[in-house]
Amino acid sequence: MSSTGMLSGTSQNTAPHWDPAAVRQLVEARLDDHLTTPAGVPATLSGAMRHALLAPSKRVRPVLLFLVAEPEEGQTQTVLDVGCAVEMVHTASLILDDLPCMDDAQMRRQRPTTHVAFGQATAILGAIALLTRAFGIIAGLDDVPAPTRARLAQVLADAVGWDGLVAGQEIDVNGRAAVVEPLQIDQLNWLKTGVLFVAAAEMGAILRGLEDDKIASVREFARHFGLAFQTADDLLDKSSVAVAGKDVNKDADKTTLVTLFGAGKAEQTCRQHIADAEAALLASGINAAPVRTLMARVLEAGRMTQK
Amino acid sequence: MSSTGMLSGTSQNTAPHWDPAAVRQLVEARLDDHLTTPAGVPATLSGAMRHALLAPSKRVRPVLLFLVAEPEEGQTQTVLDVGCAVEMVHTASLILDDLPCMDDAQMRRQRPTTHVAFGQATAILGAIALLTRAFGIIAGLDDVPAPTRARLAQVLADAVGWDGLVAGQEIDVNGRAAVVEPLQIDQLNWLKTGVLFVAAAEMGAILRGLEDDKIASVREFARHFGLAFQTADDLLDKSSVAVAGKDVNKDADKTTLVTLFGAGKAEQTCRQHIADAEAALLASGINAAPVRTLMARVLEAGRMTQK
Repeated sequence: MSSTGMLSGTSQNTAPHWDPAAVRQLVEARLDDHLTTPAGVPATLSGAMRHALLAPSKRVRPVLLFLVAEPEEGQTQTVLDVGCAVEMVHTASLILDDLPCMDDAQMRRQRPTTHVAFGQATAILGAIALLTRAFGIIAGLDDVPAPTRARLAQVLADAVGWDGLVAGQEIDVNGRAAVVEPLQIDQLNWLKTGVLFVAAAEMGAILRGLEDDKIASVREFARHFGLAFQTADDLLDKSSVAVAGKDVNKDADKTTLVTLFGAGKAEQTCRQHIADAEAALLASGINAAPVRTLMARVLEAGRMTQK
Repeated sequence: MSSTGMLSGTSQNTAPHWDPAAVRQLVEARLDDHLTTPAGVPATLSGAMRHALLAPSKRVRPVLLFLVAEPEEGQTQTVLDVGCAVEMVHTASLILDDLPCMDDAQMRRQRPTTHVAFGQATAILGAIALLTRAFGIIAGLDDVPAPTRARLAQVLADAVGWDGLVAGQEIDVNGRAAVVEPLQIDQLNWLKTGVLFVAAAEMGAILRGLEDDKIASVREFARHFGLAFQTADDLLDKSSVAVAGKDVNKDADKTTLVTLFGAGKAEQTCRQHIADAEAALLASGINAAPVRTLMARVLEAGRMTQK
């Protein structure tokens, strides 16, 4: 267990108390707990939710949230629950992004997409149930002071809303033709990936009780991490289904940094985001080593860390 | 303005302080405020949200919430905001129910359905944005103590979730063939309509500061009102598009009280629910006259009050 408190400002100890892989296992177990289905839930609905939520995943957002919060013993469950809420929101967005009227994807997280397995109606309803559940979990965090719960809900709602994740998907589906400049691509990547990375990290920082200036550094770190992650994902789109675990070459007709400047330039941009993320991480004062391990591991898929 | 406080238990004054039609106008204006679109929101997305949310509607749920809360001057805006959150959730559910993969409806609230006007992807994203916004509004109610905000969010999340509204729609789309008994129909009507009626009324009761036993009466009242409303809606499905303002005869292959027992028996059931609703309303101690007016007006469409 970490020796620093959820409410302490900074950690003096730079040792990696938490291995991201161990945190990921805790997240997996807690997600499963949350989908223990009560009577009255249609089996198709809970089946679709489990199919989507419990599929293999790196759990980047909840693990990131946890490593930023660095909970003491006794606070672990609460921090995991907030991470599960973020993962539910993320999974809901994936279910919807994959629909025939959006990306029309067949594979996701090494499984058939949810609408392929359960039909479109159940997939959409499963997404809504996950999204709603996320806000219900946050509202019901008994160990967290109510003002903090309200603040967490606000951060999550702002991240998902009409100028956040939802806007990113709308532009991706219906406004992509107008996205042709590097700054526009950065903005779209920010909306599609950055906002929820930042929300996850910020929620961890709030649970930790960080001061506002440190929270700003955490946000800056997560923004660059998210942009690096999205660029790596665009590079991954040029790989194979076996490597990606999902449909590839879906972006063939979309402008990304990869299609605009080629893989070399995209990799360079990705590395710059990683460097900027690390600088902001150090400024935040949180324990950097586990977070750096997480970044290295999740960016491996895009092979950003192999050279 | 009402002479009873938001935190007072009961009203001694049985005069109709608020006319439901006046409250409805306040709701309309406040919904419009909430959709004032900031920069960065794609025009198609906010267009779809406005199309769905600002279409003609009786605003039954937010008006009901308001009449139960019976706010003092200075608390009106807060109560309207909570009502707007409920209406956003309701509208999101209508957008999704109308999709081709669900009811495949062309008309709703006297307009083309949102997916007909804006395409399926934008319609779905608009629904998600409305749903998320609802939780954001509740989290951000500065005038409401944080524990109350958390309680309101919990009530709303429970109403929408996998054993609430979402379950009702899943059964309606994929499990309807097994719904053949009156009790099953009541249960489905409860999930499709009752839960959000009850949540709206309960949120009003919480804002009013009612004691738990009175809240139980408010819930009982709203449950019967919701079931009466759904039965009236099933009767309306046998009328014309011009009367209903939406597609009719969509339930031709579904078992409802109307198809099972005919319109006469359904009307009788509806009237029993109205009587039970009125009894519970009196037991709750809230000002009954405006709520009775609301019930009479919204059930008129199903002609339950004309004989």
